[in-house]
Amino acid sequence: MQSFNPPVRTLMGPGPSNVHPRILSAMARPTIGHLDPAFVGMMDEVKEMLKIAFKTENELTMPVSAPGSAGMEACFANLVEPGDKVIVCSNGVFGGRMKENVIRFGGVAVMVEDDWGTAVSADKLEQALNENKDAKIVAFVHAETSTGAMSDAKKLCEIAHKHDCLTIVDAVTSLAGSELRVDEWEIDAIYSGSQKCLSAMPGISPISMGDRAIHKLTNRATPVASWFLDLNLVMGYWGEGAKRTYHHTAPVNTLYGMHESLVMMCEEGVENAWARHQSNHELLRDGLEAMGMNYLVKKEDRLPQLNSVFIPDGVDEAAVRTTLLNDYNLEIGAGLGTLAGQVWRIGLMGHTSRKENITLCLAALKDVL
Amino acid sequence: MQSFNPPVRTLMGPGPSNVHPRILSAMARPTIGHLDPAFVGMMDEVKEMLKIAFKTENELTMPVSAPGSAGMEACFANLVEPGDKVIVCSNGVFGGRMKENVIRFGGVAVMVEDDWGTAVSADKLEQALNENKDAKIVAFVHAETSTGAMSDAKKLCEIAHKHDCLTIVDAVTSLAGSELRVDEWEIDAIYSGSQKCLSAMPGISPISMGDRAIHKLTNRATPVASWFLDLNLVMGYWGEGAKRTYHHTAPVNTLYGMHESLVMMCEEGVENAWARHQSNHELLRDGLEAMGMNYLVKKEDRLPQLNSVFIPDGVDEAAVRTTLLNDYNLEIGAGLGTLAGQVWRIGLMGHTSRKENITLCLAALKDVL
Repeated sequence: MQSFNPPVRTLMGPGPSNVHPRILSAMARPTIGHLDPAFVGMMDEVKEMLKIAFKTENELTMPVSAPGSAGMEACFANLVEPGDKVIVCSNGVFGGRMKENVIRFGGVAVMVEDDWGTAVSADKLEQALNENKDAKIVAFVHAETSTGAMSDAKKLCEIAHKHDCLTIVDAVTSLAGSELRVDEWEIDAIYSGSQKCLSAMPGISPISMGDRAIHKLTNRATPVASWFLDLNLVMGYWGEGAKRTYHHTAPVNTLYGMHESLVMMCEEGVENAWARHQSNHELLRDGLEAMGMNYLVKKEDRLPQLNSVFIPDGVDEAAVRTTLLNDYNLEIGAGLGTLAGQVWRIGLMGHTSRKENITLCLAALKDVL
Repeated sequence: MQSFNPPVRTLMGPGPSNVHPRILSAMARPTIGHLDPAFVGMMDEVKEMLKIAFKTENELTMPVSAPGSAGMEACFANLVEPGDKVIVCSNGVFGGRMKENVIRFGGVAVMVEDDWGTAVSADKLEQALNENKDAKIVAFVHAETSTGAMSDAKKLCEIAHKHDCLTIVDAVTSLAGSELRVDEWEIDAIYSGSQKCLSAMPGISPISMGDRAIHKLTNRATPVASWFLDLNLVMGYWGEGAKRTYHHTAPVNTLYGMHESLVMMCEEGVENAWARHQSNHELLRDGLEAMGMNYLVKKEDRLPQLNSVFIPDGVDEAAVRTTLLNDYNLEIGAGLGTLAGQVWRIGLMGHTSRKENITLCLAALKDVL
């Protein structure tokens, strides 16, 4: 067996995005112990910077030591008790995954379905809550990576709270790419991923929970159906320096990378990052539309960081992606689920969201089509 | 906030061990997509090399995208069904964690307790199985990281199978450091960690399951209480190239590191790695005993890679560890659980298991004591 030397790609799929050389370098720094005081200090900084990213003062803001799917699971495993009714707003793949999570932790999922490519309907949520007075939780995806649609998280949380429900929000693709205000919008529990708009390497899931969520998880009647993700235990590990107790071994080098990506986010300013994602999206959109391509999602609901466009008639979409990958080292994403074969998903996330990548993508697509 | 530049430590605790510069460099290679054909090829190589490490032909041999605790949870979540009786042999911290896992997945844990620092007693296991004819699974820790005791995995598996039980084996600290033969010893399900004797960075848990375990997990009456760790789904993601379906986003760069660590293991030969761990252990042991230190574990049950020695009378153990860390950049481990304050745990795992580290450790300890 030989060492693996990956090709150098421009990553314009649904994630991972391109990781900045500063972050890659950070990952290669010497490993230290996960209970080393130097490491504990770095962990505290990661938590502080994640609060800036999420725009929250939540003390329980931390990186789960596993990919975004595990962050989702951490929220559902801790907040859903057997028998709990959960309203799941679904407008793409990840709403469906939320449903799976509810069921596996013994909850009852009530689905509020919207078409793939549209935002979650506030009216339908209101109606579902009126019909399910015993609902405990409302869950929805802020930025659907499978379609490129953004939902109005603030409004959906308002409705949920009016009906005394906790909210669980998937921000895997929105964090650091689109406006997101956990405290102002009163989101109770939120999870994200490292490999999208933060442009760190995949494998970490930042989460944040407010007081209402913590109250629920610390007052459960039944134990969490996971030891690894039981936040009652994990909080002890990620708590303040002196009180830390051993839980698991943190992914030390991956957290070096996450730390560096957050330092870079602070240098840029998170609002500036949102604005950069938006203006680069407009640049890409103008180019794609000039080529006659159409977006799946209507203008006002579009995610700047994930552009789903219909595949032009008569085009062998897989062949195009293969040519882009092999001849241009350019990755764009295929459609997922019911959208497979219908759309491409072009990502402009984090460090990928730069003018030179847009120029390359448009020119390469023009060549190949 | 500033970039984080960790101190350079010699890691002689219970893990993580020192990561070789080749592995650190591998981590810093450019991130590619987790569905990129180049990545899929690397994944296949990782699986092949893990089979060599585990000494198995099991097709279901793969890295779980999270730390060893999640590998443990993957085994219990998939193999324990509600109501299943599980005999848990406990001789340290990690046996207790196994019990937690059994309970959280709805099983009934029957504990077979041995003193911390001793091997698991085969006689006690036999007796427990005679008294619990309805037991379905036997779980034990091959190499107890909390004490430094090794148990006879081959014998324990023989006894379990005589009573028609599946076996779940914790090999977090033994893999690539001590003799381990999954197929020959007929281990049904096993999990390990990346950050011990493989000397990759923390964050990955290699697992392997044989036919009996797969039969159980594919014929469950109830769904696995985890979406992220449901091997029925994960197998589709880590399966052969053409059949792969999206499950989660793999920790791409961490897997580069794991791949490189496995290439290095293949270059050395896994039996040679076992022998190196043993001979370096003897070197350390002779030095520690010459200083008047005594081992917790009796000679025939000692792990070469984890040396638990009693703290000499009148010594402030925490102060010694702090001085070693601050003045020598040398990390050794504290006692865990009931052994806190009684022992130090000196690790000689993977890349840490080198003569120069032993020399440093002995000399530094002599200086400080």
